Amino acid sequence: MKRFLFGLLYPVIAYSQSSEVLSVRNFRVQHEHRLLQQYRDFLSIPNVAADMPNILRNAEWILSYMRSNGIRNTQLLRAAASDVPPAVYGEVIVPGATETIVLYAHYDGQPVDPTQWLEGLHPFRPQMANGSMVNGARIMDWPQDGTRVDPEWRIYGRGTSDDKAGVFSIITAYAALLSTGQQPKVNIKFFFEGEEEAGSPHLHEIFNQYRSLLKGDLWVICDGPVHQSGRRQIVFGVRGDTHLELTVFGPKRPLHSGHYGNWVLNPAMELSRLLSSMKDANGQVTVQGFYDDVVPLSASEKEALSKIPPVEEQLKKELGIRAVERPTPLNEALNLPSLNINGIQSAGVGKQSANVIPTKAIASLDLRLVIGNDWKRQQQKVIDHIRNQGFYVTEQEPTDAERSTHEKICMVKRSSGYNAQKTPLDDAFAQRVVQSVKKGTGEDPLLLPTLGGSLPLFVFEQELKARPITVPIANHDNNQHAENENIRLSNFWSGIEVFASIMLLQR
Amino acid sequence: MKRFLFGLLYPVIAYSQSSEVLSVRNFRVQHEHRLLQQYRDFLSIPNVAADMPNILRNAEWILSYMRSNGIRNTQLLRAAASDVPPAVYGEVIVPGATETIVLYAHYDGQPVDPTQWLEGLHPFRPQMANGSMVNGARIMDWPQDGTRVDPEWRIYGRGTSDDKAGVFSIITAYAALLSTGQQPKVNIKFFFEGEEEAGSPHLHEIFNQYRSLLKGDLWVICDGPVHQSGRRQIVFGVRGDTHLELTVFGPKRPLHSGHYGNWVLNPAMELSRLLSSMKDANGQVTVQGFYDDVVPLSASEKEALSKIPPVEEQLKKELGIRAVERPTPLNEALNLPSLNINGIQSAGVGKQSANVIPTKAIASLDLRLVIGNDWKRQQQKVIDHIRNQGFYVTEQEPTDAERSTHEKICMVKRSSGYNAQKTPLDDAFAQRVVQSVKKGTGEDPLLLPTLGGSLPLFVFEQELKARPITVPIANHDNNQHAENENIRLSNFWSGIEVFASIMLLQR
Repeated sequence: MKRFLFGLLYPVIAYSQSSEVLSVRNFRVQHEHRLLQQYRDFLSIPNVAADMPNILRNAEWILSYMRSNGIRNTQLLRAAASDVPPAVYGEVIVPGATETIVLYAHYDGQPVDPTQWLEGLHPFRPQMANGSMVNGARIMDWPQDGTRVDPEWRIYGRGTSDDKAGVFSIITAYAALLSTGQQPKVNIKFFFEGEEEAGSPHLHEIFNQYRSLLKGDLWVICDGPVHQSGRRQIVFGVRGDTHLELTVFGPKRPLHSGHYGNWVLNPAMELSRLLSSMKDANGQVTVQGFYDDVVPLSASEKEALSKIPPVEEQLKKELGIRAVERPTPLNEALNLPSLNINGIQSAGVGKQSANVIPTKAIASLDLRLVIGNDWKRQQQKVIDHIRNQGFYVTEQEPTDAERSTHEKICMVKRSSGYNAQKTPLDDAFAQRVVQSVKKGTGEDPLLLPTLGGSLPLFVFEQELKARPITVPIANHDNNQHAENENIRLSNFWSGIEVFASIMLLQR
Repeated sequence: MKRFLFGLLYPVIAYSQSSEVLSVRNFRVQHEHRLLQQYRDFLSIPNVAADMPNILRNAEWILSYMRSNGIRNTQLLRAAASDVPPAVYGEVIVPGATETIVLYAHYDGQPVDPTQWLEGLHPFRPQMANGSMVNGARIMDWPQDGTRVDPEWRIYGRGTSDDKAGVFSIITAYAALLSTGQQPKVNIKFFFEGEEEAGSPHLHEIFNQYRSLLKGDLWVICDGPVHQSGRRQIVFGVRGDTHLELTVFGPKRPLHSGHYGNWVLNPAMELSRLLSSMKDANGQVTVQGFYDDVVPLSASEKEALSKIPPVEEQLKKELGIRAVERPTPLNEALNLPSLNINGIQSAGVGKQSANVIPTKAIASLDLRLVIGNDWKRQQQKVIDHIRNQGFYVTEQEPTDAERSTHEKICMVKRSSGYNAQKTPLDDAFAQRVVQSVKKGTGEDPLLLPTLGGSLPLFVFEQELKARPITVPIANHDNNQHAENENIRLSNFWSGIEVFASIMLLQR
């Protein structure tokens, strides 16, 4: 039976769900209180990559959840240094299966500032709300056994969407198959990373060390949000990512802004001038050569983009914005490299404001990359731009000698980074995953040439010769990377069905 | 006996100190361990104006210190509202005296951020260091009775210089006169304000209510630093001051900088652009009409300025800067209105940095004013400039309707403020104070037409018809208003002698 969803202009052809995946759904419905409680326990363990003791508690929790659900050969995959978050591994070898899918998610989360969260919320004390709190929903008691659970409810906490949801859905999908007497059609390997939000600095090393263990025909990544229209999407690429932190220096000690104001240069003003020199009023980055390396989209990618429902006006309304940086549709913009200010700080504002000329002003820049860009080359273009604005660039705090020689000084800290990655839209194995999701869920997913966000997927190609694709499950308004991160239960439940569908891979 | 100090170009003619003030010095030398311990107790009471319980503990401490040193009629002068820091009052009526000097200092301090202070320091746990910690000095044990106290040592803590030093020196000067069998030549009134760093919003009301109690022939203000050359200065005016806090808005919720970066406008970039539109590369404020109201300096003021030793090259070296905002000498720059960024913030940097497009970006602006400027008019010029940059200006968080109507939105919060004040350089009573300081300390003070900093001295003129002058005592590198605030003991001791000299006013 076919149904038409999502308006007239962009019809979704919807089929019946497969009976195999309907069994998975029934399993979830029967056990949803227990699953929510288990997820709550998992979310309660802080997961910032730099917090090793808690990172290890997360890893142990995952090992234990996998073991209790019949996943074998579970182990921590460690880098050489002792302070590196381990990856968590497990596998299911299916008798007679000749193909292997590796399922990836990450269990670490972005740094948190609990003071920024809404009242009653805390990143590591997960709470249930009866909807989206930005739209007026309220925190409620955690649902008790036997009570109804509404799929529009949301869990709030760090990692709810990004990306403990991936870890939990993937393992639970296998648990559901097992409990309903089913078996995957392919061998499944589970790989859960612990420092993705820190830029995956050791993924390369772990892949290299465990290359044979991690062999597979396709990697499927669970991360990021579904399309803003609410439709499932399967994503064939990711932007690369790297960061620069700029510090512009003023006087060595904070000065009274009365006794020295309009004589001593103010580093906050100098930083403002520097940042505003990097982009024009149309959102075009003015750093020389910024767009030079970009490989243009292929005809089939352009065609895929043309099928994406327009969400721009809906998004503007939802985000409370009238203007955007560039006139192109969102998904065209995401196929370009970007330069974005993640944060700026100089002295204090509000109650922390004092009458000073600050000693320094700091900006954190995020550079997203597309195919063709090299992350080190992209960093260098920005650094050259800073020099062209008259700054002396250093990598350390300036010495007295440097201070006395240079009129404007900018310290640049380069983070590590990685390049963009794309798997061809017509890759045969990837297309079987598309068909499996379609059959299992009964809906056509959107196909996206690239996600705006980043994952270190080029490392998969480089180290493992693997072609990854990404299957996101989180709601698009999940506040990923920020305060009030949340997941809508409907998306959470759907994730289990999507990964069960993939495990039941079509021939 | 005359001595020449301070190089050849700007000789200081130094005389012998008066025997009266030498007695004061001897008293201090005999009691310096006790005085330091008492000052330490005073500094240990937190003194941020918004912290009423501790503000009242400070006021009680001052009352008690005045009473124990024979000062009469001590009382708290309160505004009508109960949550206003009181002023602390006391007086010494000298038999036969026909003239009255009112001595002013403030006991509240700027807001603090303990995390910004050097290791081992805390704003409200005063510590002794064996010199300037920026120059490598270390924290040492608090000096025990009977041990030598070096005048180059410094006390670190909020208020050490600004302005508990004023409160303590003034009271101690009277205590020293009393203990050495001396008496002031004029009646002395003591007035210690408790919300100067919050902009003195109730000084007007307190003056109005206690007008007859506060009657005097001259107000002498102890606040701010001595000249950067180390020479004492007597200051005849102050700049006015007011603030604006600007908030530029982005999306209603923080967005993933990958999934939305280079499509959604970034408020940190918009704020940078706005701020950099306010000043040109020569430090000239480009806000329309910004310098229009300025009353030019008089001939005698210009002459006084010409006698000020040049400190620009010394300062640049000390501050580790090569360039300044404008080519004029420091003291000429301070005779103009200024626009200065006190702080900027948007999302986080460093360890708090996350991959987001921030929801807002905030800047705190400090506007200093000179004679001719009106603080409300000066605020308005900046607000008009923001509008001219294409921003919709509001005083509240924007509504959804405003967000959907305006492309760029800036919320402007106006703080209260006050205008500049000047007492003529040739005021007869003020000149007697100059002569008293000269006789008491044995040195010629510099005469400054205005301080770069601000005090609400126009309120003194307006409410009390009083002409105030300012006699600072703190070292110029005291980190006033910032982390690591400190006072050099030599300056602290000197303050006692300066105020004793003033109490022994010349006829």
